[in-house]
Amino acid sequence: MLGPINLGLLGLGTVGSGVVRLLEQNKAIITQKLGQPLNIKRILVRDLNRPRQVAVDPALLTTDPETILGDPDIPIIVEVMGGTGTAREYILQALSRGKSVVTANKDLLALYGKELFDAADAHGADLLFEASVGGGIPIIRPLKECLAGNRIRQVMGIINGTTNYILTKMSREGRDFNDVLKEAQSLGYAEADPTSDIEGDDAARKMAILASIAFGTRITYPEVYREGIGRLSSHDINYARDMGYAVKLLGIAREDEDGIEVRVHPALVPLNHPLASVSDVFNAIFVEGDAVGETMFYGRGAGSLPTASAVVGDIIEGARNLQHHDRGRISCTCFYDKPLKPIGAIITKYYLRLVVVDRPGVLATIAGIFGEREVSLASVIQERMLGDLAELVLITHRVREKNVREALEVLGSLPVVKEIASVIRVEGGEAR
Amino acid sequence: MLGPINLGLLGLGTVGSGVVRLLEQNKAIITQKLGQPLNIKRILVRDLNRPRQVAVDPALLTTDPETILGDPDIPIIVEVMGGTGTAREYILQALSRGKSVVTANKDLLALYGKELFDAADAHGADLLFEASVGGGIPIIRPLKECLAGNRIRQVMGIINGTTNYILTKMSREGRDFNDVLKEAQSLGYAEADPTSDIEGDDAARKMAILASIAFGTRITYPEVYREGIGRLSSHDINYARDMGYAVKLLGIAREDEDGIEVRVHPALVPLNHPLASVSDVFNAIFVEGDAVGETMFYGRGAGSLPTASAVVGDIIEGARNLQHHDRGRISCTCFYDKPLKPIGAIITKYYLRLVVVDRPGVLATIAGIFGEREVSLASVIQERMLGDLAELVLITHRVREKNVREALEVLGSLPVVKEIASVIRVEGGEAR
Repeated sequence: MLGPINLGLLGLGTVGSGVVRLLEQNKAIITQKLGQPLNIKRILVRDLNRPRQVAVDPALLTTDPETILGDPDIPIIVEVMGGTGTAREYILQALSRGKSVVTANKDLLALYGKELFDAADAHGADLLFEASVGGGIPIIRPLKECLAGNRIRQVMGIINGTTNYILTKMSREGRDFNDVLKEAQSLGYAEADPTSDIEGDDAARKMAILASIAFGTRITYPEVYREGIGRLSSHDINYARDMGYAVKLLGIAREDEDGIEVRVHPALVPLNHPLASVSDVFNAIFVEGDAVGETMFYGRGAGSLPTASAVVGDIIEGARNLQHHDRGRISCTCFYDKPLKPIGAIITKYYLRLVVVDRPGVLATIAGIFGEREVSLASVIQERMLGDLAELVLITHRVREKNVREALEVLGSLPVVKEIASVIRVEGGEAR
Repeated sequence: MLGPINLGLLGLGTVGSGVVRLLEQNKAIITQKLGQPLNIKRILVRDLNRPRQVAVDPALLTTDPETILGDPDIPIIVEVMGGTGTAREYILQALSRGKSVVTANKDLLALYGKELFDAADAHGADLLFEASVGGGIPIIRPLKECLAGNRIRQVMGIINGTTNYILTKMSREGRDFNDVLKEAQSLGYAEADPTSDIEGDDAARKMAILASIAFGTRITYPEVYREGIGRLSSHDINYARDMGYAVKLLGIAREDEDGIEVRVHPALVPLNHPLASVSDVFNAIFVEGDAVGETMFYGRGAGSLPTASAVVGDIIEGARNLQHHDRGRISCTCFYDKPLKPIGAIITKYYLRLVVVDRPGVLATIAGIFGEREVSLASVIQERMLGDLAELVLITHRVREKNVREALEVLGSLPVVKEIASVIRVEGGEAR
C-alpha cells in the first residue's frame, strides 16, 4: 500500500464538514478504489475556537493559508469556503504552485472561470468543480465526458432547492409566497437573507457554468437574464395547474442558428414533462443532445453530505490523475465565441393574466393589439369576475419576446386594461 | 493538428450505423475536444452487399476480422455486433493485442465480465461499456467516478424500454398485455421474439452489470432472480393505480448487513416516486448512496443515436487515454466477494390478489394463516364480486418473502381460496 495523498481543506462550514465526515465514513472503499488512502493534512478556518459540525483533531486547524498553500506535501486543495474574495486568491495561488484544486464555488466559476482555467492550464494542474452545480447530482462530468459526442441543444434545470421548495408548497397548499418563504426560513431551507435564491441569482450562476460547458463558449454570471419568484401569485399557480402546467423556477440555456440564450425565470412546464414532478428541495437538470435525445439528472442540489459526495468524487479523480501523472486531462472546453441573444430576441410561449373592464369589444381590442405584433393566442380563458372587472388568462403561441413586450406596453396604456397582473413564459412543450 | 486516431468497428447494425452517423455529424466538435480527429478505418460486416442504414464507403467494409484486429494502426476497437460468440473472441483478441475496446454488449459483460476485465488489465488496455446499460443515459461512469465516494445502498431501474412501453399502454388505455404486445411489435418497439425483454432477461443482464459496479462484487446474469411481465393483468394495474401505485418492471439491487439482493420483476411503485412517471420507452436508473441520497438518471435506453451517444463518449475517453498514455485508469472495481441472498430471504411488501368464496369467516381464516407466518396486512380491499366469489386485494407490511410464499402455499390448498391470482412486490416506499 502506498502512503497517503494529502489534502488541504480551505473552509470547514457545511460542505467542508460533509467532506471530513464522508472521507472518514467511507475511508475503506475509497482507499480500495484508489489503492492509496486520502488524508486531510490541514484545514483552513477563520476561527480556531468556533464550535464545529464535525469532530476534527484541533491540530489540523490553521488560520494561516500559507501552512496549506505553501506545503509541498499537499498536492490537492479542496476549496469549500465560498465567496469570490480570498477563495479566488487562494485557488490562484494553489494552481500557480502546481496543486490540483477541487472546488464547490459556483460564484467564483461563474465570474472568473476563464482566469481560473487559464491558471490551471499554465501550471498543468486540475481544476475540478462537479459540486458547483446541482450539489451531489453528477452533471458536470456527464456533460463534459459521457455526452461529449453530442451537439447539446438545450439545458433546462431546476437548480435552486429553496425556490423549488417554496413553489412546491405554494402549489400544494395554495399558500402565498411570503407565507411559505417565512416557513422555509424557519426550517432552514431558505437563508435569513434569501435574495440570492429567490431573485434567481444562485440559479443564474449555475446556468452560466452549465451553458459554458454545453455550448463550448464562455458565459459569465452577469450575462444571464434573470427574474425571481417573488412576484408569483398562488392564483397563477392554480390557473396553470388547471391548464395542465406546473410553475417552476427554470434555468434555460438553448442554442439555435441565431445564437445562445441563457436565462433564469419562473416558467409554466407541462405536467407530463419530467421536470414538472421534481418537488421540494430536489433539483433536476434536463439535457437535450442531438444524439442522446432527452436526458435528465435528478437529486439533492444542496446539503452537507450530498455536496460532499460531488467534492469527494472530484478528489478521487484528482488523486487518480496525480497517480497516473495525467493532470489537466480535460480543462476549459470553451473553444468558441458564440453570440448571446438579448432577451427580446428569444422565442417562446407566454402565459398572461390581465385584469380588464368587462365590456363588449374589450377582448377584440386586446386580440387586435396582439395580432398587430404577430402575437397569436393559443387560448383565452375568462377566469373570474372582480366586480365590473374580468380576469383574463391568455396563452400565446410561440412568439418573439420583443413583440410581446411591445404589445403589453400598448395594452398597459389602454383605459380598459386595469392591470397586467402576470407575464410568465411557458417552456417544455405542450401540456397533455 | 495531429493525425487521426483510427477506429475499427465490429458490426454495422442499428448501433453501428448510429456510431458512423454521429462521428460524421459532429466531427468538428469531437475533433475540437480531442485535438485530433477520429477516423473509422475498417468496419467488420457479415455480408458486404447487404443494404445499410447509413452511407459508408464500401472500401471500409470487410468480412475478415483479422484486417481490423491485426492492424497495428487501429488502437481502438468498437464492438457493436452483439452476442456472446465471436464478439467475445474478437474482444479478447483485441485486448490481448493491447487495443482498447469500447462495447455496447451487455450480454457479454453480464456473463464474461471478469474474463474481459482480466484481459484488459493484463494488457494495459481500456474496456469501456457505458452503452451496455441505459442506452444513451450516462450511468456507468457517474456510478464509477462521480459517486465513487459513496457507499451505494440501492439501485432501482426501469431499464427495459419495451416492457415500459407495454406497461404504460396497459395502464393508460386499460388494455391487455397480449393486445399491447402485438401493437408494440408492429411499431418496432418489441422484437418478433420478445422473450428476452418481456421475461426480464434483458433487464437482468443490465442489473448484473449495475450491481457489480454499485457493490464492488461480481454478479453474473444467471444469478439475477427474474420474473417477466407476461402474467400482469390490467385489473392489477387498475387496482394499483387506485391505491396510488404504478406498475413497472423494476431491476432492484440492494445491499444490507445480510448481503446483496439483485432481482428483476414487476413491482408496484408509489405514484410520487420519481420512477413512477417514467413512461413509454424511456429508461431511468434510481441510485441511492449514503452521501448523495437519492439520485436518478433518465433518458432513452435504446435506439441507434442514443446508444451511439454513449459509444462515442467512450471512444472519446479511450482516445484521450491513448493521447495521455494513461490507459486502464479504472478497470474492474469488483474488489469484494459478497454473498448474494436467495429470493426467499428478501424483505419487502407484497400486493396479493385472491379469489375467494364469499362467506363469513373466510377473511379471518386468511388473515390467521398470514399471521401465523408473521405476514401482517397493511390493507385489505374487497374489490368486486364474481358470482358467489369475491376478489380480495391485500397489501402486506414489510415481510420476508419466504414467509409470504409459505402462507400462499397453505392458502392455495384451502377450499375457500379459488385462485391466487396475483403476487406483485411493492417497492419504493409508501404511496402518497
